[in-house]
Amino acid sequence: MNIKITGTGSYIPKGIEKNEDFYSHEFLNADGSTINHPNEVIVEKFKAITGISERRYADKQLTSSDLGFLAAQKAIEDAKIDPETIDYIICAHNFGDVKSDTIQTDVLPCLASRVKHSLRIKNPKCVAYDILFGCPGWVEGVIQAQAFIKAGMAKRCLVIGSETLSRVVDKHDRDSMIYSDGAGATIVEATDEEGGILAHNTASFTFDEAYYLFFGKSNNQDLEKDTRYIKMHGRKIYEFALNNVPLAMKECLDSSGVDIKDVKKILIHQANEKMDEAIIKRFYRLYKTPEPEGVMPMSIHKLGNSSVATVPTLFDLIRNNKLENQHIEKGDVIIFASVGGGMHINAIVYKY
Amino acid sequence: MNIKITGTGSYIPKGIEKNEDFYSHEFLNADGSTINHPNEVIVEKFKAITGISERRYADKQLTSSDLGFLAAQKAIEDAKIDPETIDYIICAHNFGDVKSDTIQTDVLPCLASRVKHSLRIKNPKCVAYDILFGCPGWVEGVIQAQAFIKAGMAKRCLVIGSETLSRVVDKHDRDSMIYSDGAGATIVEATDEEGGILAHNTASFTFDEAYYLFFGKSNNQDLEKDTRYIKMHGRKIYEFALNNVPLAMKECLDSSGVDIKDVKKILIHQANEKMDEAIIKRFYRLYKTPEPEGVMPMSIHKLGNSSVATVPTLFDLIRNNKLENQHIEKGDVIIFASVGGGMHINAIVYKY
Repeated sequence: MNIKITGTGSYIPKGIEKNEDFYSHEFLNADGSTINHPNEVIVEKFKAITGISERRYADKQLTSSDLGFLAAQKAIEDAKIDPETIDYIICAHNFGDVKSDTIQTDVLPCLASRVKHSLRIKNPKCVAYDILFGCPGWVEGVIQAQAFIKAGMAKRCLVIGSETLSRVVDKHDRDSMIYSDGAGATIVEATDEEGGILAHNTASFTFDEAYYLFFGKSNNQDLEKDTRYIKMHGRKIYEFALNNVPLAMKECLDSSGVDIKDVKKILIHQANEKMDEAIIKRFYRLYKTPEPEGVMPMSIHKLGNSSVATVPTLFDLIRNNKLENQHIEKGDVIIFASVGGGMHINAIVYKY
Repeated sequence: MNIKITGTGSYIPKGIEKNEDFYSHEFLNADGSTINHPNEVIVEKFKAITGISERRYADKQLTSSDLGFLAAQKAIEDAKIDPETIDYIICAHNFGDVKSDTIQTDVLPCLASRVKHSLRIKNPKCVAYDILFGCPGWVEGVIQAQAFIKAGMAKRCLVIGSETLSRVVDKHDRDSMIYSDGAGATIVEATDEEGGILAHNTASFTFDEAYYLFFGKSNNQDLEKDTRYIKMHGRKIYEFALNNVPLAMKECLDSSGVDIKDVKKILIHQANEKMDEAIIKRFYRLYKTPEPEGVMPMSIHKLGNSSVATVPTLFDLIRNNKLENQHIEKGDVIIFASVGGGMHINAIVYKY
């Protein structure tokens, strides 16, 4: 028995927020002090590091579970399965449903229950739960689906990553430009077909790193102190990721038995272009092998960082030939990898 | 290989909120209209149905993850294990960390990461994630731990249920009297000892039932409409639970192969005394067997409904002979069962 992804879907919000749209923002340092550069310079510097020129914001009337539902519908259609045969719906996110212009996270019921409700699935044996695991939530959801299948508790799972980060950003923080909204979904199932998940690896670094990403107050000291937003210690995360992600990926690849030369694509969490490039460079250096051109498809330029949604969305785009000069073929070995708030790191070596 | 609970711990907040403390509240109907009874009558009626005479509220400086950490510490001590050998920390909750006198849920990082940080565990291979699954979250966490162990991905897991419902109640809603704070934790591990988990069963009812428990505005129409609280359609839940929980428990017991006469204890989610009694009555009626006296230990009278924390806390109290006339012995068969927001139902048949 192998475990394969038999269908993918994504929902990319229509609303485009361009870098120029931030020219009018009042950016401040974390201590509330003024930044001594015009916004045009701040934005240009931001783009040079992250690669992001625009990002997507969900329509006001939609919440994260709506995005998840729309992506799930497409994944089910793509896999050509009867939704009533799904054993698990696993929904990864980090802020639940946040209605537009409000500050509360709504996770009652959990988002997976909402998605199942919207899909009109009747079968009560389809277990719907949410996983909170930072940006690596979708990859971890796939690893959990694999566990249920291996343990004989499931045959077919729907794994979703959905997030509306635009609802939790501090507009006075330059980092707010990173974040985006979106959802990706996949059907993961037991199959007799060759390939599928060859190896996985997960790690949670919490001793010093637990609060590198956190929920904190606005840089604007005049705003309500009790209202909190997504915040990060960017430099620490950058160093942490560079030191740990390549090693975690190597451990995963080595345990799969696949040769580095046979890796066709690395689908890494779209956090920051420069960081992702440095990670991949270091990963290949560990094998003393040159990095093949085009091995790391990127969607961050136009889609920003939508947390749990980036990896499944990227995979869906490539499968549907919607990413220029990127395609995968049957038998290709792919690495899925992600790093994020927790701090968590994970990777899957997958034979398409 | 069997899978057993080798250690338990709980944290019961010291703050006691008595029924009399609600005499001064201004209770209103959901439509904002006045209730035509004095509070003494409302509270007496509430007690007659739910069995609750007092509940616990956490100290202002503590959050849900602190409670979870304190319970986890005890479970680790009880199991006499090195915390560095834990493969998974699974934390079930429904509202994350809500600081006292604020309205935002904080789940960045996830609560399991916070607990791991507080436990000073260094091992990055210890994977820390949160599960959102309504009140049945702790039972489901145990079922997921079982999956990881069966799949060969773990040997030892820490499963926590922690909640501070006092931070999300609408003071103008009579149902606010149900909710309580607390945390329970358990070590679940592979062992050669006899017994352990014999069977499990989980179901998610979302077609009509997804929003029976929900996040809604205050009964006081003068309050901010965007501020939301835990809310429920009590009557619908009562009927739903009565129709579905006994059947789910029966399905679980039948699949375990254990005879109804050999069930020594049923540890059911402490939601509402009358509802729990009706569930157990119906469960035994399905077997045409009289209900043994004392089969269903209750902690709700003094501890209220602390969601995910009730079942592990109850188990911990009994194991430590802290519940009058209740004890369990090696070889006893126990059923853990819960029902809650989602709507989710689950059960485990367990040989102590």
